[in-house]
Amino acid sequence: MKPLPQAHPSLREHIPLKEFEAVRSMTDHLIEPLSPEDMVVQSMTDASPAKWHIAHVSWFFEEFLLVPFCPNYQRYHPHYAFFYNSYYNAVGERWVRPHRGLQTKPSIDEVIEYRHHITHTMTSFIHQCQKGDIKFDFLPDIIHRIHIGIHHEQQHQELLLMDILHVFSHNPLSPAYRPSTPAVMRDATPLTWHDYEGGMTAIGHDGDDFCYDHEKPYHRCFLNPYQLAHRPVTNGEWLNFIEDGGYERHELWLSDGWDYVSRHDVRHPLYWQRNEGEWSVMTLHGMMPINRNASVVHISYYEAMAFARWMDARLPTEAEWEHAARQSHHTGAFLEDACLYSQALPHDDGSMQTMLGGVWEWTMSAFLPYHGYRAPEGAIGEYNAKFMSGQMIMRGGSFGTARQHIRHSYRNFFYPAMRWQFGGVRLARDEDSS
Amino acid sequence: MKPLPQAHPSLREHIPLKEFEAVRSMTDHLIEPLSPEDMVVQSMTDASPAKWHIAHVSWFFEEFLLVPFCPNYQRYHPHYAFFYNSYYNAVGERWVRPHRGLQTKPSIDEVIEYRHHITHTMTSFIHQCQKGDIKFDFLPDIIHRIHIGIHHEQQHQELLLMDILHVFSHNPLSPAYRPSTPAVMRDATPLTWHDYEGGMTAIGHDGDDFCYDHEKPYHRCFLNPYQLAHRPVTNGEWLNFIEDGGYERHELWLSDGWDYVSRHDVRHPLYWQRNEGEWSVMTLHGMMPINRNASVVHISYYEAMAFARWMDARLPTEAEWEHAARQSHHTGAFLEDACLYSQALPHDDGSMQTMLGGVWEWTMSAFLPYHGYRAPEGAIGEYNAKFMSGQMIMRGGSFGTARQHIRHSYRNFFYPAMRWQFGGVRLARDEDSS
Amino acid sequence: MKPLPQAHPSLREHIPLKEFEAVRSMTDHLIEPLSPEDMVVQSMTDASPAKWHIAHVSWFFEEFLLVPFCPNYQRYHPHYAFFYNSYYNAVGERWVRPHRGLQTKPSIDEVIEYRHHITHTMTSFIHQCQKGDIKFDFLPDIIHRIHIGIHHEQQHQELLLMDILHVFSHNPLSPAYRPSTPAVMRDATPLTWHDYEGGMTAIGHDGDDFCYDHEKPYHRCFLNPYQLAHRPVTNGEWLNFIEDGGYERHELWLSDGWDYVSRHDVRHPLYWQRNEGEWSVMTLHGMMPINRNASVVHISYYEAMAFARWMDARLPTEAEWEHAARQSHHTGAFLEDACLYSQALPHDDGSMQTMLGGVWEWTMSAFLPYHGYRAPEGAIGEYNAKFMSGQMIMRGGSFGTARQHIRHSYRNFFYPAMRWQFGGVRLARDEDSS
Amino acid sequence: MKPLPQAHPSLREHIPLKEFEAVRSMTDHLIEPLSPEDMVVQSMTDASPAKWHIAHVSWFFEEFLLVPFCPNYQRYHPHYAFFYNSYYNAVGERWVRPHRGLQTKPSIDEVIEYRHHITHTMTSFIHQCQKGDIKFDFLPDIIHRIHIGIHHEQQHQELLLMDILHVFSHNPLSPAYRPSTPAVMRDATPLTWHDYEGGMTAIGHDGDDFCYDHEKPYHRCFLNPYQLAHRPVTNGEWLNFIEDGGYERHELWLSDGWDYVSRHDVRHPLYWQRNEGEWSVMTLHGMMPINRNASVVHISYYEAMAFARWMDARLPTEAEWEHAARQSHHTGAFLEDACLYSQALPHDDGSMQTMLGGVWEWTMSAFLPYHGYRAPEGAIGEYNAKFMSGQMIMRGGSFGTARQHIRHSYRNFFYPAMRWQFGGVRLARDEDSS
Repeated sequence: MKPLPQAHPSLREHIPLKEFEAVRSMTDHLIEPLSPEDMVVQSMTDASPAKWHIAHVSWFFEEFLLVPFCPNYQRYHPHYAFFYNSYYNAVGERWVRPHRGLQTKPSIDEVIEYRHHITHTMTSFIHQCQKGDIKFDFLPDIIHRIHIGIHHEQQHQELLLMDILHVFSHNPLSPAYRPSTPAVMRDATPLTWHDYEGGMTAIGHDGDDFCYDHEKPYHRCFLNPYQLAHRPVTNGEWLNFIEDGGYERHELWLSDGWDYVSRHDVRHPLYWQRNEGEWSVMTLHGMMPINRNASVVHISYYEAMAFARWMDARLPTEAEWEHAARQSHHTGAFLEDACLYSQALPHDDGSMQTMLGGVWEWTMSAFLPYHGYRAPEGAIGEYNAKFMSGQMIMRGGSFGTARQHIRHSYRNFFYPAMRWQFGGVRLARDEDSS
Repeated sequence: MKPLPQAHPSLREHIPLKEFEAVRSMTDHLIEPLSPEDMVVQSMTDASPAKWHIAHVSWFFEEFLLVPFCPNYQRYHPHYAFFYNSYYNAVGERWVRPHRGLQTKPSIDEVIEYRHHITHTMTSFIHQCQKGDIKFDFLPDIIHRIHIGIHHEQQHQELLLMDILHVFSHNPLSPAYRPSTPAVMRDATPLTWHDYEGGMTAIGHDGDDFCYDHEKPYHRCFLNPYQLAHRPVTNGEWLNFIEDGGYERHELWLSDGWDYVSRHDVRHPLYWQRNEGEWSVMTLHGMMPINRNASVVHISYYEAMAFARWMDARLPTEAEWEHAARQSHHTGAFLEDACLYSQALPHDDGSMQTMLGGVWEWTMSAFLPYHGYRAPEGAIGEYNAKFMSGQMIMRGGSFGTARQHIRHSYRNFFYPAMRWQFGGVRLARDEDSS
Repeated sequence: MKPLPQAHPSLREHIPLKEFEAVRSMTDHLIEPLSPEDMVVQSMTDASPAKWHIAHVSWFFEEFLLVPFCPNYQRYHPHYAFFYNSYYNAVGERWVRPHRGLQTKPSIDEVIEYRHHITHTMTSFIHQCQKGDIKFDFLPDIIHRIHIGIHHEQQHQELLLMDILHVFSHNPLSPAYRPSTPAVMRDATPLTWHDYEGGMTAIGHDGDDFCYDHEKPYHRCFLNPYQLAHRPVTNGEWLNFIEDGGYERHELWLSDGWDYVSRHDVRHPLYWQRNEGEWSVMTLHGMMPINRNASVVHISYYEAMAFARWMDARLPTEAEWEHAARQSHHTGAFLEDACLYSQALPHDDGSMQTMLGGVWEWTMSAFLPYHGYRAPEGAIGEYNAKFMSGQMIMRGGSFGTARQHIRHSYRNFFYPAMRWQFGGVRLARDEDSS
Repeated sequence: MKPLPQAHPSLREHIPLKEFEAVRSMTDHLIEPLSPEDMVVQSMTDASPAKWHIAHVSWFFEEFLLVPFCPNYQRYHPHYAFFYNSYYNAVGERWVRPHRGLQTKPSIDEVIEYRHHITHTMTSFIHQCQKGDIKFDFLPDIIHRIHIGIHHEQQHQELLLMDILHVFSHNPLSPAYRPSTPAVMRDATPLTWHDYEGGMTAIGHDGDDFCYDHEKPYHRCFLNPYQLAHRPVTNGEWLNFIEDGGYERHELWLSDGWDYVSRHDVRHPLYWQRNEGEWSVMTLHGMMPINRNASVVHISYYEAMAFARWMDARLPTEAEWEHAARQSHHTGAFLEDACLYSQALPHDDGSMQTMLGGVWEWTMSAFLPYHGYRAPEGAIGEYNAKFMSGQMIMRGGSFGTARQHIRHSYRNFFYPAMRWQFGGVRLARDEDSS
């Protein structure tokens, strides 16, 4: 984690009050369509109830800002730290993850009241900071933690959407989280390859604005020449893969992947269904027909790797991806666009499409620390460093990601079998492989 | 199943309308304290959400009465048979049991509307029967099925209470389903033994009134002389067992039981907690101190057997239990008494206490068919016969059982490791073992 | 356990030396066909390596006779009690059961040397007893324990055969434990029913000769009238069941059984194979064609129950079985006959066939204590009592049972899903069910 | 895979006959101490029986050389491809891995006969190749495959030793695979750090001699400055870690690692034991006292990472490791040295110690393809590429590795929880971290 900025009077003007208010009201907006029942259920260990998400992000502000810095602050409830701590061992005992779906009390109403309490207290606290009522030396740390809290809540917004889709996908009624929006219908755009020379470059976050600790340090690296597809793989291409027996041909698969698809009988992306020859997909807008021109989504790393091998291509490394993304300007859908599934891509205008937004993109890089990385001390240090094992990097954000949340240097990570995130794949090749 | 009664004009007066209305409003009453979140959650595979219970008992009337017998009846919803069938293979596919807790849709309001619809349609249908609008030949079967439906709903009332207690027991807030009632405090009553000569007798249901198929036929059996305790084992006696190392002494335990308590680290009855030397217990009235004079409850068959061995006693067979129960008149608490935990027992007045009511009592009889038993044909036949494997008989009903539901011949059954039912134990001995 | 016989001078003549020598040399004979590799392997947790069996039965004599009674006896090896104790908690720590197959040391040669040492020391010890060198008061206990040791070793002889067949069944080479013997080919004998009036009777062991504790006490019981098949179910009848969809019709199955066959994809008895339309079965004599006229073997209780329901019959209770067996004289094959699979049955001559010998027969009785039963104290008491949970009674012995081992009162017990024992089924009916 | 060498007459002189003979007799030598029982047992799914190893390496030559290239060759046994194929999906069905320990037939003698048959047939075949009796065009492929076969057998030699230690470690007799050799006792050498400037470099195999496909291509990469410890971590340092509570302090551990050690109660390296305050360790020479000056061995990646964090250091990347190893000449023990455990290291003479030999060293690099890598086609292509998921790179070989087997570019890989390999850890640091 970079050294905190020095305390300077102008700091007072940099407290992200507006961003704080925005993220809090976006979360409030996101839960509007949900009934109390929708919000209490946990459909798998990797997922959490919506109620838990909205309480947890509030607890985060309470635990890491109000308790240590806000004068005379009393914890809202003696049990909530136990209820709403996610995984911070340093902060103490917590409700075991697989039982999160059993928290029928406190009720939704009580949790929302807690949320409002935190929002209001934090707002007052920020005002105190702005007025200079809080010890000046604390300000750099306070501002940094507010940024983490905002980003943290944005992450949980996307998780909340992923998790609610997972809950609804089990229901034969195929309930829609939001009423359906009309699908944009366009012809398929043939895939084209963009060349990158590579050479010495650097990746990681290099500005003064906020980023997570694991995006740093900005460090030098060398890239051999490579090519990148101008857009992610589409549903249409994926259907070709299925029809060509892609899920049945062991030679395309990683050994772990083959075990996984065999054991779980995986034959298509998550949420796809086939009825009488027609493919459809469960989305946050309900069940929809497959759009061949949209980016495929809800595939595991294993599936992405098998598809790449079938295409005689590979996935990009995260350094290649970041290098290319810095040179690209076209973006795809974000959370604010309120279209919560993968839409057809625009026609090829010669540019790299949707490197930010649209769907998360698997890379072939394992989630490991950058050269020179050191995990922050204390509970905040548990945020990312301890997950650097067994997970693969995804890049670029998705239609479920807040626009302000994503950066070129942003590193997301998932286990290779995970599929419930809004993730697809963009292919890469070595320069000479055509 | 006994031959159905002949169709006779007087049958019309025997349609149990009042009982039907009573059971439906009791269920409505039981869910009053529950929030939508409380009603959707499933805390283990053996349990079901309250929402599921109240829909399932309605579906039962729809599937087995309205659909086959009610003229022009249209199913309320095309998916509900799939959603709310419990285990009737003969009735078709169903929602897998471990996923019952993911049914956030239909909402509670929709389910309650469905309930009301079934209540009203059934009421009309019964009126039609009474008026003679339904083919006379069907009446015996209809009446029999209404009785089953009423009994079935009473069973689910008790299950609903068991299941909600299980959900609440996971919550550190120890929520009370009903506000606490004052505990009756009495001194301990020393255990006394009642002698039974045994000899040729008969057990099973022998009247014309309703019973389940597996309570029949009434059949002869021989009993060797035996003794029975005048009351169930108390919490005080159980504390003695704990303090004497009962849970650590392998020689007291069945091999399967020893494996079970070792693997799950069982050291006391379910829902007991020890804080700073004081024992308390989670009940439907919230967390309460252990009452030494009340019957112990929430113990497995394995624990009951270890306790009996520790006492140099045994459990009764179901034939011994039934033989004795027929001669006994004192009863314990039932569902209608609204005291949903085990209260102190009255002083010994020389009678056998609470053979009906209070707590279910483990017997040492496996759940097997009586001599001459034949499973009914069709879906109704799946009700009991297919569960005759691996389960042990419990007798007598509990504070969670409707008073009209229980009989001397009533056979309940649970796997030996199960503990969430309202079950305790009454000891027996061979005549000469003192 | 019955009171031990009084110490009387004639006791010295009743020490079963010849029986001891016979059982020891039978075991030696049984392992002759086995290679060291065959003897070390454990194919499932329920099974044990042959090497373990032959060491364990020796340890039993060492632990329960030589150590407590033989003057100046020193344990053969300090680790062997740990290695070869099976499940006696009272005797101390032991090698965990699922790891028995990892005991490559001590070697077979060392184990056989240990066996010989125990055989010789026990023989000397018995001579000492006969000569009167051992304190007279100990004799009743010693004689009783030698009987247990002999019976114990006979049980492990059958287990050894069951377990080695299970090992070999995994091998595509279908190795034969013994060279094949010619199958006796006879026509099918149609099943006939024998009537039993029932009434007051008694079951259990009632003589002075040896029996296990759980065969006692001899006690009165009442039997309603019943019918019993004159022979066990044949392979030919079982093929009819398969062809009639018996394994696919849920309505025939217990709920636990249906779960079991679904989860494990059970579609025929254990060890059956179908190749190009022809059924064959793996036996201790290697792979053989199915003999339609032989008793079916290697079926679970669940399968037996489904078959009985398909035949509109049931299984006998153990009391019915024992009552009938006492009146029957025809026997089937035993271990000494050296035909280690199920042969065609003789034609019906009006008698009940093979109630002893042939194949073990499932009953519908759970393994529970008889009225008046009390478990013996100490480690010997762990022999049977602690297994009285979840298991079903089998009766009559099999082609793998020593002839001297079996009795009408003999109670064997297995979990309902177990299939590797030499077990089949004989049908019963209520008198009036035809 | 690099283009195969052109067929040139001199190729005949390059057929590695001597190496083939050497590897075959080393394997024969390695199994000498083993009894038939030792060779048949499988102690965990990751391990295989010794018998399987020696048959499998023979099958490899049969399948990939004799069958395709040797004129008129007939398979030795129709079942052996099924028995001894390891994981080559392209070659057909195979015996399931977890059941390898049930192969009591064919016997050891038969397997050794098979081994000899393959050795002799291969020798004749190589002579044919040398004499020019085999079609010349095939030679490059044949030579390449013989090299793979030799390397493959060397890998299985080390696996055989790992697996037999794992079997013996379960035995309280602590059997020694080889009689104990005297431990070299030396004082501890304090750890020193060597500096590496880094910069542009290249890694991967770059010569013409044999290497595995995944060591290629030789490709450019950039290294930031780093430091490397002059020797691996010692047992003495590991004891300090244990005594400092290293296994109990969650903040040192990766999240997956913490779960792993908690679930499996890991508190020290595999095979360590503590008796009355003294630590000892099970080795192939039997149980030995811990030598504080020897490299620690049998630790997982998780433990290595926790230890590094405790030391405020990290693991090297594989590029850093390879870069440093190319500049180092001191080597540790190899298989031929016949000392099959970790010995005390020599005193620091200023050089990097035992980068090759001694113990495998964990790196922080995931096993992923190099830039430009393409998996070979066909069954041989299954050798490495399909395992590029979830595993971490280890480098440098161990006392169980054949000297000719290891290279600076050699990439071994294990899942992060694995501990039964002969693996330790060497620490790295960023240049400026002191």
